[in-house]
Amino acid sequence: MATELKPTSSLFPVKGIKLSSISAGIYKRKKRNDVVLIGLSDKSKVTAVFTKNAFFAAPVAVARKHLQSSTAQYCLINAGNANAGTGEQGIEDAFETCKAVARHGGCPPESVLPFSTGVIGEKFPVDKISAVIPELVENLSETNWNVCAEAIMTTDTVPKSVSKQVEIEGKTITITGITKGSGMIKPDMATMLAFVGTDACVEQPALNLLLKNAVKISFNRICVDGDMSTNDACVLMATGKSGHQAITDDKGEAYKILQSAINEVCIFLAKAIVRDGEGATKFISVIVDNGRTRDECLSVGYAIATSSLVKTAFFASDPNWGRILATVGRAGIDDLDVNRVSIYLNGCCIVKNGSVDKDYTEEQGKKVMSAEDIDLNISLDRGDEKEVIWTCDLSHDYVSINAEYRT
Amino acid sequence: MATELKPTSSLFPVKGIKLSSISAGIYKRKKRNDVVLIGLSDKSKVTAVFTKNAFFAAPVAVARKHLQSSTAQYCLINAGNANAGTGEQGIEDAFETCKAVARHGGCPPESVLPFSTGVIGEKFPVDKISAVIPELVENLSETNWNVCAEAIMTTDTVPKSVSKQVEIEGKTITITGITKGSGMIKPDMATMLAFVGTDACVEQPALNLLLKNAVKISFNRICVDGDMSTNDACVLMATGKSGHQAITDDKGEAYKILQSAINEVCIFLAKAIVRDGEGATKFISVIVDNGRTRDECLSVGYAIATSSLVKTAFFASDPNWGRILATVGRAGIDDLDVNRVSIYLNGCCIVKNGSVDKDYTEEQGKKVMSAEDIDLNISLDRGDEKEVIWTCDLSHDYVSINAEYRT
Repeated sequence: MATELKPTSSLFPVKGIKLSSISAGIYKRKKRNDVVLIGLSDKSKVTAVFTKNAFFAAPVAVARKHLQSSTAQYCLINAGNANAGTGEQGIEDAFETCKAVARHGGCPPESVLPFSTGVIGEKFPVDKISAVIPELVENLSETNWNVCAEAIMTTDTVPKSVSKQVEIEGKTITITGITKGSGMIKPDMATMLAFVGTDACVEQPALNLLLKNAVKISFNRICVDGDMSTNDACVLMATGKSGHQAITDDKGEAYKILQSAINEVCIFLAKAIVRDGEGATKFISVIVDNGRTRDECLSVGYAIATSSLVKTAFFASDPNWGRILATVGRAGIDDLDVNRVSIYLNGCCIVKNGSVDKDYTEEQGKKVMSAEDIDLNISLDRGDEKEVIWTCDLSHDYVSINAEYRT
Repeated sequence: MATELKPTSSLFPVKGIKLSSISAGIYKRKKRNDVVLIGLSDKSKVTAVFTKNAFFAAPVAVARKHLQSSTAQYCLINAGNANAGTGEQGIEDAFETCKAVARHGGCPPESVLPFSTGVIGEKFPVDKISAVIPELVENLSETNWNVCAEAIMTTDTVPKSVSKQVEIEGKTITITGITKGSGMIKPDMATMLAFVGTDACVEQPALNLLLKNAVKISFNRICVDGDMSTNDACVLMATGKSGHQAITDDKGEAYKILQSAINEVCIFLAKAIVRDGEGATKFISVIVDNGRTRDECLSVGYAIATSSLVKTAFFASDPNWGRILATVGRAGIDDLDVNRVSIYLNGCCIVKNGSVDKDYTEEQGKKVMSAEDIDLNISLDRGDEKEVIWTCDLSHDYVSINAEYRT
């Protein structure tokens, strides 16, 4: 189930970025494309952020190392096998696939960044992947963003992608991104992969900063089930083909335009992950405002977004503000004055100063809870800070999907 | 669904503690007893621990205050309405019911401790409760523990109770306890109420310490869904009727015998809550050992016990060690060497030093996962500390129960 999420029909190609996808027979449930290659033109610059899980997967270890030591020219992505919990062998296997790309792509293996998503702990199918590399290299094309968004899916129900164009110095800059992710979603980074490409011309420090800033307010603000994956990665690639002056981290006009556009792309993709959250029937924006610090707003937001009781209430369209209050109360704000807390659902005041609002009726509550998109606003009335977390409900389908996955 | 949990048939009466229960028509799903009165003989001593939720309910505020200012003679408990999120009115209402007990029980209202469990945010039915007080006082009897265990249930499927006898100075000491709790279960204290009575003769400081120690290793080590309730309370009552010398907090032989027996009673009741966890089909002991500190063992234990992905895998009897590893990896141990982590399910080694064990087969895994009681042992191999958390799986019934409760 995906809430209000449709495949994007038109994605702008990005000058200097070519993609291809193919089936290597890794994905077990049905035959479909499950390996993607992204090729970058010379002088492209790449930056990435990775999972903070101590059990990071083999491809994360290899991609991190390659990014530090070399200039990336290819991203190799597979779905169906995460190459996680596979020890030293997994690292060798990931490197082996980089070598296969290097052989056919004409670059050192260190210029290949590997990414994997899928089941943890199964032997990585090196031979299957290596076997399809020649065809992947041959089929690289600028118009393949859409099919590649499909090929990286696992429990996703809809491919997730977005394109945006902005003008910098009279030149049109394109930003196109694809992402996958559905369960095991919580910051920092989740069971998600995201690849965002642009033809903007950006210096490396600026590129790093652009991604860091964008991830902070997009992929690091979503939560499906509170779990954090071993494989998460978000990659920003800039080819520099658009021909304007290189953007630096001077925070000038051009930087601001690009930051804003990349933010928009990343927020769209991050929200799409939540909308396609495993079993999701509702998309909930948890807006915590009037906090003393942003951290305490985030604590409340995450407490709500990971509360099974609150999430099942949303699934049931039950305006169970008691569960919301109880969750705010255990979010770890030591000196919280509960008599100042107010709660609104899609603008309807439910709790005012710690108790149910005098004008509130259960009918109003049920009506606002029946919407697919819900803003849950929690006002702490103790400061000026604000944070937003995007999450979904907890449904029967979530249990089914995760009880049946693998088996 | 309750795993391996049957009502206890025989509960020993406790000299000096009388109980009664009645229907006041508060519980909505069906007519059943929903109010309990516990009366204590003169010179009884009482201690209690309460929820740490900032949104503590009105009865918690009143009971805390009464415990500090007066000698408790009665506990008044109701199911079906939590009197939480009810503001000043809720506090007045709770006190009003104490006054009703005081009038008929012949004591100051401050000697009555109120406890409520049930739906949050509904007006407290003072009149209904006050109306049944005379009959409750009249029916007080030492043999009513069993029926009262039933009367305090909400989403519980089985009444939970236990009795134990030990000898101190040649005298037989009885400890009998009842508890309720099924969802919103996580330390510190959960949607749970527990009342443990003993005829032991204990000085107040020793009584406080006995309960504090027992709760730490029992009710504060269980986790059904990671939520913390507004109403949790655990009460230890000692009537001193057994006639031995008063036990002090000298940690002498008598203290040790009593502590051990109270621990046993509290652990039994705490585990019973998990076994009767909402939708639970499996009882899981998460044993984290060889940690550097007890805190880090607890962090790993709670991360596992609150992971929806791990809990749905248990529901599916799926030995999905990848999800377990990923959860250990995000538990917040900064310098964790994942290559030293090993995982056992009911003694069967699944992960050895960070990777799947060479001798492990999926068949073995499925076999151990099909048990109703599962020991999940996670060895961190970096110290000598150990902690145990008791939890259950996440099933379709959990979602049903929590989506349908109230509606």
